[in-house]
Amino acid sequence: MMGKIVIVGLGLIGGSMAMGLKGFPQFQVIGVDKSVETLDFAKKNGVADQVTADVAAVLPEADVVILALHPQGIVDFLAQYGNHIKVGALVTDVCGVKGAVMEAAQKYLPKGVDFIGCHPMAGTEFSGITNAFPTLFQGAHFIFTPREDSTPNHIQLMEQLVAFLGGEQISVTTPEDHDQKIAYTSQMMHVIALAVCDDPNLLAIKGFEGSSFRGCTRVAALDVPLWEQLFHMNTPALLSVTDTLIENLQSYRETLASGDREALTQKLTKSSNLKKSMALPGPDLLQ
Amino acid sequence: MMGKIVIVGLGLIGGSMAMGLKGFPQFQVIGVDKSVETLDFAKKNGVADQVTADVAAVLPEADVVILALHPQGIVDFLAQYGNHIKVGALVTDVCGVKGAVMEAAQKYLPKGVDFIGCHPMAGTEFSGITNAFPTLFQGAHFIFTPREDSTPNHIQLMEQLVAFLGGEQISVTTPEDHDQKIAYTSQMMHVIALAVCDDPNLLAIKGFEGSSFRGCTRVAALDVPLWEQLFHMNTPALLSVTDTLIENLQSYRETLASGDREALTQKLTKSSNLKKSMALPGPDLLQ
Repeated sequence: MMGKIVIVGLGLIGGSMAMGLKGFPQFQVIGVDKSVETLDFAKKNGVADQVTADVAAVLPEADVVILALHPQGIVDFLAQYGNHIKVGALVTDVCGVKGAVMEAAQKYLPKGVDFIGCHPMAGTEFSGITNAFPTLFQGAHFIFTPREDSTPNHIQLMEQLVAFLGGEQISVTTPEDHDQKIAYTSQMMHVIALAVCDDPNLLAIKGFEGSSFRGCTRVAALDVPLWEQLFHMNTPALLSVTDTLIENLQSYRETLASGDREALTQKLTKSSNLKKSMALPGPDLLQ
Repeated sequence: MMGKIVIVGLGLIGGSMAMGLKGFPQFQVIGVDKSVETLDFAKKNGVADQVTADVAAVLPEADVVILALHPQGIVDFLAQYGNHIKVGALVTDVCGVKGAVMEAAQKYLPKGVDFIGCHPMAGTEFSGITNAFPTLFQGAHFIFTPREDSTPNHIQLMEQLVAFLGGEQISVTTPEDHDQKIAYTSQMMHVIALAVCDDPNLLAIKGFEGSSFRGCTRVAALDVPLWEQLFHMNTPALLSVTDTLIENLQSYRETLASGDREALTQKLTKSSNLKKSMALPGPDLLQ
């Protein structure tokens, strides 16, 4: 008998995941959304094997539940529907904060329902199912935050799902470590992009921007309610990394202002060598 | 008789420009470099119609001279070779500061030699001819800073050269306006990328980075001598935009720290709407 993967929320991430997981061996993919428009689009475009608004009907049969909602939506969903999920099932999510979500899972899921937090490091500056595409996760990093008692079978199943989506690297860590590091690598990048664009004369520089400007500011065109929740649910970590960034910028400012060219060269050398030592893959080719 | 375009400096930009301009109607492309390795590579790969180290031999015959050196190199070249250039020729450049370069042109070029400053908004985080490619300028913005007495014929020729390279938008402005705007759109993006990477624990976050991190920090792996010169030659403008950025970041920090979710939503909405109003094309696909 086929297993059932229920994906709750068919936005950019949930929709792309449904498309990408269709055909995963031995499992059917069932997409759930409240929006009639989203369901119509999903049906017409074959986003999942089945789509429905009736989450209470499909949840009790789910072997895997993927919560692809905004962070607050995940917490609310667990509170409302957690006890519809059968013992032995695996629940996971896709959101960018893990502490608050895992606390809610601990509180609301019945004993015997496993939860493995998941954060796929993929996205675009667009949202909604009309912008979803099945290759969104190709080459992406995934971060897992399992519980201490998450079963090896469930972790293995998660690895297989990621591999099927084309994900290329999985890091396993605690929710606390995830939230601290993501404050730096993701949330701070969004704060920077916003701060750069928060200029009434922004339009005056149109035509003078190159790839460095576009690369830095692309994510400023963000989904406001989502990012407000992410920032709010991870405020202490985000404040800490933002303070460090401001200190580093002040330090560059002072070296520049001093006119000491040797000191500037040394500073540029140090920062650029740190960056080069990361040996990250080339630029992103998200469409 | 064919005209002659002499490109001085066959690095990433000069090399890509030579490749991209080969076949420009009625002109031969002659590449000049001091490095034996660069010249060997250029010969073997047909980067230009002719390549040579002997700039004094080819310069007097040039109808167009493109200076594709670092900013200080351009100033020094004009001082040393400016008087080898024939009356009626057009001299241009490709560097990211215009004030200092145009002052040198004014000082060292003979009367009757035209100079139109040029800044192609294109590049990658790599340097040297081995990383050059002829499509580097496709879709790129170009900024021209002509003299007040630059001839219409020369401006038209520049437009034709840009079109042949695949450039898509030309802005014409003064050196002062260029340097002020570029401090914001380009130099500040590099300061941000450097400041983000200037963290001794940078390697610890490897595996947790997504496209926003890669997009923002890509340019931190920069050519240190080049960027030291660009920063140094445009210090007042760069300090001014960096101060504004630090203020904007502090403002985000305070709103976050206040816990006022409505204020945070308003701030995110304002910044993201400004960004969206720019309606920039999608992400960069530089290889």
